[in-house]
Amino acid sequence: MILLSERKLVMVPGPINFDPRVLRELAVEGLDHISTEFVRSFAEALSMLRRIVNAKNEYQPVVIAGSGTLAMEVSVTNFLERGGRALVVSNGYFGDRFVELLSNYEVHVDLLRPDKIGSSVEASRVVEAVSKEDYNLVTLTHVDTSTAVLQSLPEIGNELRDKETILVVDGVCSVGGEEIDIVKDGVDVLFTGSQKALGVPPGLSLLWLSPKALQRLKDIRKSISPYYMSLNRWISIMRSYEEGKPAYFGTPAVNLIVALRKSLEIILEEGMEKRYLRHRILSEAFREGMKALNLQLLADESSAAHTITAVRLPDGIPSGSLVDLVRSMGVLIAKGLIKDINYFRVGHMGTVNANDIVATIAAIERALTKLGHKIRLGEGVAGAQEVLCKHEF
Amino acid sequence: MILLSERKLVMVPGPINFDPRVLRELAVEGLDHISTEFVRSFAEALSMLRRIVNAKNEYQPVVIAGSGTLAMEVSVTNFLERGGRALVVSNGYFGDRFVELLSNYEVHVDLLRPDKIGSSVEASRVVEAVSKEDYNLVTLTHVDTSTAVLQSLPEIGNELRDKETILVVDGVCSVGGEEIDIVKDGVDVLFTGSQKALGVPPGLSLLWLSPKALQRLKDIRKSISPYYMSLNRWISIMRSYEEGKPAYFGTPAVNLIVALRKSLEIILEEGMEKRYLRHRILSEAFREGMKALNLQLLADESSAAHTITAVRLPDGIPSGSLVDLVRSMGVLIAKGLIKDINYFRVGHMGTVNANDIVATIAAIERALTKLGHKIRLGEGVAGAQEVLCKHEF
Amino acid sequence: MILLSERKLVMVPGPINFDPRVLRELAVEGLDHISTEFVRSFAEALSMLRRIVNAKNEYQPVVIAGSGTLAMEVSVTNFLERGGRALVVSNGYFGDRFVELLSNYEVHVDLLRPDKIGSSVEASRVVEAVSKEDYNLVTLTHVDTSTAVLQSLPEIGNELRDKETILVVDGVCSVGGEEIDIVKDGVDVLFTGSQKALGVPPGLSLLWLSPKALQRLKDIRKSISPYYMSLNRWISIMRSYEEGKPAYFGTPAVNLIVALRKSLEIILEEGMEKRYLRHRILSEAFREGMKALNLQLLADESSAAHTITAVRLPDGIPSGSLVDLVRSMGVLIAKGLIKDINYFRVGHMGTVNANDIVATIAAIERALTKLGHKIRLGEGVAGAQEVLCKHEF
Amino acid sequence: MILLSERKLVMVPGPINFDPRVLRELAVEGLDHISTEFVRSFAEALSMLRRIVNAKNEYQPVVIAGSGTLAMEVSVTNFLERGGRALVVSNGYFGDRFVELLSNYEVHVDLLRPDKIGSSVEASRVVEAVSKEDYNLVTLTHVDTSTAVLQSLPEIGNELRDKETILVVDGVCSVGGEEIDIVKDGVDVLFTGSQKALGVPPGLSLLWLSPKALQRLKDIRKSISPYYMSLNRWISIMRSYEEGKPAYFGTPAVNLIVALRKSLEIILEEGMEKRYLRHRILSEAFREGMKALNLQLLADESSAAHTITAVRLPDGIPSGSLVDLVRSMGVLIAKGLIKDINYFRVGHMGTVNANDIVATIAAIERALTKLGHKIRLGEGVAGAQEVLCKHEF
Repeated sequence: MILLSERKLVMVPGPINFDPRVLRELAVEGLDHISTEFVRSFAEALSMLRRIVNAKNEYQPVVIAGSGTLAMEVSVTNFLERGGRALVVSNGYFGDRFVELLSNYEVHVDLLRPDKIGSSVEASRVVEAVSKEDYNLVTLTHVDTSTAVLQSLPEIGNELRDKETILVVDGVCSVGGEEIDIVKDGVDVLFTGSQKALGVPPGLSLLWLSPKALQRLKDIRKSISPYYMSLNRWISIMRSYEEGKPAYFGTPAVNLIVALRKSLEIILEEGMEKRYLRHRILSEAFREGMKALNLQLLADESSAAHTITAVRLPDGIPSGSLVDLVRSMGVLIAKGLIKDINYFRVGHMGTVNANDIVATIAAIERALTKLGHKIRLGEGVAGAQEVLCKHEF
Repeated sequence: MILLSERKLVMVPGPINFDPRVLRELAVEGLDHISTEFVRSFAEALSMLRRIVNAKNEYQPVVIAGSGTLAMEVSVTNFLERGGRALVVSNGYFGDRFVELLSNYEVHVDLLRPDKIGSSVEASRVVEAVSKEDYNLVTLTHVDTSTAVLQSLPEIGNELRDKETILVVDGVCSVGGEEIDIVKDGVDVLFTGSQKALGVPPGLSLLWLSPKALQRLKDIRKSISPYYMSLNRWISIMRSYEEGKPAYFGTPAVNLIVALRKSLEIILEEGMEKRYLRHRILSEAFREGMKALNLQLLADESSAAHTITAVRLPDGIPSGSLVDLVRSMGVLIAKGLIKDINYFRVGHMGTVNANDIVATIAAIERALTKLGHKIRLGEGVAGAQEVLCKHEF
Repeated sequence: MILLSERKLVMVPGPINFDPRVLRELAVEGLDHISTEFVRSFAEALSMLRRIVNAKNEYQPVVIAGSGTLAMEVSVTNFLERGGRALVVSNGYFGDRFVELLSNYEVHVDLLRPDKIGSSVEASRVVEAVSKEDYNLVTLTHVDTSTAVLQSLPEIGNELRDKETILVVDGVCSVGGEEIDIVKDGVDVLFTGSQKALGVPPGLSLLWLSPKALQRLKDIRKSISPYYMSLNRWISIMRSYEEGKPAYFGTPAVNLIVALRKSLEIILEEGMEKRYLRHRILSEAFREGMKALNLQLLADESSAAHTITAVRLPDGIPSGSLVDLVRSMGVLIAKGLIKDINYFRVGHMGTVNANDIVATIAAIERALTKLGHKIRLGEGVAGAQEVLCKHEF
Repeated sequence: MILLSERKLVMVPGPINFDPRVLRELAVEGLDHISTEFVRSFAEALSMLRRIVNAKNEYQPVVIAGSGTLAMEVSVTNFLERGGRALVVSNGYFGDRFVELLSNYEVHVDLLRPDKIGSSVEASRVVEAVSKEDYNLVTLTHVDTSTAVLQSLPEIGNELRDKETILVVDGVCSVGGEEIDIVKDGVDVLFTGSQKALGVPPGLSLLWLSPKALQRLKDIRKSISPYYMSLNRWISIMRSYEEGKPAYFGTPAVNLIVALRKSLEIILEEGMEKRYLRHRILSEAFREGMKALNLQLLADESSAAHTITAVRLPDGIPSGSLVDLVRSMGVLIAKGLIKDINYFRVGHMGTVNANDIVATIAAIERALTKLGHKIRLGEGVAGAQEVLCKHEF
């Protein structure tokens, strides 16, 4: 009955609802990769990328055409030689994915998982593991998109700061929405995709490299990195653009990069502190809305991400049915990714606002009712409204 | 605290949230007003305009660059000679505006108003008036944007069908959202602006002329119409475009017309019946939401429009404060237009969907709370949800 | 054979090839006419409109939804009472149009025309006419789009400066491309449409009023202006927006006005002097190209406009055939408007650049050849290239 | 002096001037990668990709987020095991790049080059090489973007058809502009990037796989392919989308894929035969223009590509100076890529039309003149016009 149109709420954990200004910028004309305008645009985007994660000038951001999965492979293969050793800390599907990815290469991988789904791995366990074994790198997933679990970074970052070990952080579902300070948190390699909290349509892999990581790239004898993923090659391209000179390794995704520059400008205009606060309040409102409907959250309260929430469903309501129904109402949410758990996932990041949160909860209320689950209509929204009313929303 | 962006809910009675496809079409390039592509586009738009109001081929739609106010002046001046006589039936500010407009000309104007604000003029009173006096034209305001009152058309239309009198209907806040059948309802001149339920950014005046109106344009000796507003001139332009031949009287608003064609295509894809039903259900949901918050509606239940609702506020809550606060939440609503009544207005037409309705009510709830008015948060949304749940929303 | 696409050269005298940045801005979302962002945008546009014609703060720009024809009617009807007297100075179809328009009203109109088509009326004849008769207003057409004749303004402006007579200038085909200084040239009412050298899709009427004109609007007893065209009403709306407060008379064409602001920003970024120089050089290049092909120009050399050129054709080549053929090559040019003269018209204004000029001449060369007219291919382009090479093109 | 704007002619060998319709489609809203609308869009794009190269249903197209360089690495690593053997046939920088890329892996590479730069490798030499040695794959570069040399495919394709050897063709600068029939030409793996003759902004790697290639992917024990480049994984994703079911390996570049669908629709609307003919005629016109200016072409006449032309310059005119000057005229062309040869490159593919060709030649004429090189202005354009006049241009 709803009018079919593009006026949908995109509440999956990426892509999101992009700012219309970013989408229009994407349609830029008359540029090639060596145009003065593009060179300046790319240089500005790189410079702003540093500010997003509070990186100093010595940190090098890198933008490569590709999806987040490409960024993930880049982030580890450049720092491992054949026979190298990696510790994967996983709170879900995307943490586990490092293991699957690395199984493609001749390297050793150890895996740490939390006691139960919905928790994060305790920092002490990682500290212990790295004290027993010399790892070339440790991977953390800041927010695991499958479980909505947030992994705390600073303790582990501090532990590794003076070690040889490179700390790789998958920030795909976090950068731009979850608080991160690449320097203080001791992160060496951070990566994300464009379509999440950075607010740019999918197609860009983004990485940030610490001075320690940059040094390692110089020192490593022969990494297992594929040709297209060679950070040494890409870094020299980035530096050239930052110095105002175009350079070629692969044609940069011109339009997406121009859109990225626009989105970063908008993000920095809001300011990172206000942005993080907005994500915290809106995620709290959403969680309270779900709890008011007596639905349980997958992630522990202490590990709940602010960019995404995973919500369990009673056995009688298959998540597929609920998700389909809510989507038919113009609110795009996602099914769970972990087998044998009946849950759905809602992203709330980037341009998200209180209206999105309220409309999403209301659609879930109606869908539950239509699927025969007894709730009091308006109760979920009320839960969210209580939170919103305490703040400037 | 809310991210500033273009992701706003535009819930005033025009402009509205335009379909992104319409906005992109607006940015069309490489066309002039005699391009084959434009000629075809304009002809298709005119043809679809007939279908929107169920007009037969003998009816002539006219599109002129200008606002709804221009259309209003066109609609009456072409059918009056100096010394002519008009009956204005007014349920609010926009009805009264015919009087103000016509006071610019040397014509006689009689005015009928309802007993009280919020009611519509009873058809019998109009029938009586036209039986006593020979009017050249009678004006009705289908939905008065100031009071959200819907005026019923068929009885009056039937009465005038065989008379000389031309029935002019201001459909600015109705066409595309309120049910209208130009033939059955006996309308001779219908007009609207592009930015309301037709879903195109402001800048187009649209009119439809019945065979009776077309005949009058031929017969009238010397109308009081200004030069730019001469329907005889515009009609020959429209006919030429419909025959595939460009013609010139003033440069047509090429991009807006191409966007209009797209919007009409989308509207007809939905189908008028489904579209009217959607407007009926969503307006009911909104009204029930307001009532659940113990707010009173300005319009009588029997005269409530489906494209807009006017809501009274308790004395302690000045409408200006509420409207400003709700707007700061990214939900654009409007103050009242009738002096000495403390009320606000919410448009719900065009691309409007259940998510918009829910988010708007929730924003009003939060604003009332912040302004110190005691309500139970979630209660308004609950009222709307009850209605939505009964339907495919 | 040419790929059908929107990649056309729009070389008619309006619409033109719009800057893609302006077109994207046109697709702005989430605004109504009282949004803070729109109010600021409108105020900025009005302020920049002054700068475009070098107007002082006391001059008032006015923007109304409508085509240039509307602006024309506004420009005269507000300054005439019934029985008033106007002198129309006409160099072609659009000059004559003032006569046609005014014949709709009960006013006296005198007409001055040049001795022959292609010339402009000598200033001395106007001076003589105004010394013999008290006119309420005199109309000049800065560039007549039908003949491409430029009318010089300063002598007439100076003559009328201290008289009661209002000097109305039709700047439709000039403002933004032809040099104009509203103060020095003594213009009281200047108007244009958006789609010409101001570079915004059609749909906006733009006017500028001098202090003398503003005073007259206060003093005039009862002008013949229609309701929608009442400058007194529109001026108070403009002033309100300039003071940061939205006001309503008719819904402003929000998206077009936002696009106008963008276009004005781009124009002022280029700078008016550089812009006028560019129009002078490119128009010279085009004319030299035509002359190199032995084609004659309609306008006298001394009266040649810089925004448009009208080119005569030998009898054997009907302008309709040539225009159609050139248009099929993706270069949109226009037929003549003056009966019994075999000629075509080419607009070169706004975003026009050397590439457009060259491609247009080349298409004309090929079309002439295909129509059996003997020319040396490349000769026209060579003529233009000689001019371009002397400058930074 | 030229107005700075996006109205540039993008005449480098990718990116190109994109059709505005494609750019607007890129700005699509409200979609995620599992939306019904996106699933259908992706499926349609894949289906149309087959038609572009005349592939049968058994051929599998694959679309991966990334640049053409990624596609190149995908195209070879999936068909080689460690210790495998490849024959690289190279007519320039991009042919040689296969050698550089493969040097990252433990495989054997043989290289065939033509006798001199500007020629293509004779088919007979390839036939001889493959008869002497069992190669796992042979790579050809259909058009080498560095030299503008076209490599003929059918003889080599026929030779390899019944062999085990996989024929990999780099179609980056050809697919969509140069005639190719993947079946008749015996191609097993074809790849390109989106930003060339397919007319979509950069960011998509596109591949087509023959039944023989698909079989090899099943049979190969352990290819050297990186994780993100695993064709087996991507193929199952493509098949799922083609069956109407979304699947996940990496988030697809949603907006670029929707734009791709639009561009393919436009391409197929033109028809491949007409499209190839247009490229042939326009490239001939450009070459004749250059020859008329007494400039020499880098590629042999018999090996000249139709999507790009490389033009030698006299010693006194450094290509850097010429390219910069032409670019400052709003015509974006590129420097040469082969060291020690003084030349520039001009792309003419995708939406290219006669106006672009003429304007580009004219800009080159003016630049040569300004750099002190004696030519007769208009002579180059005349050369092109002679060609264009013989056809429907």
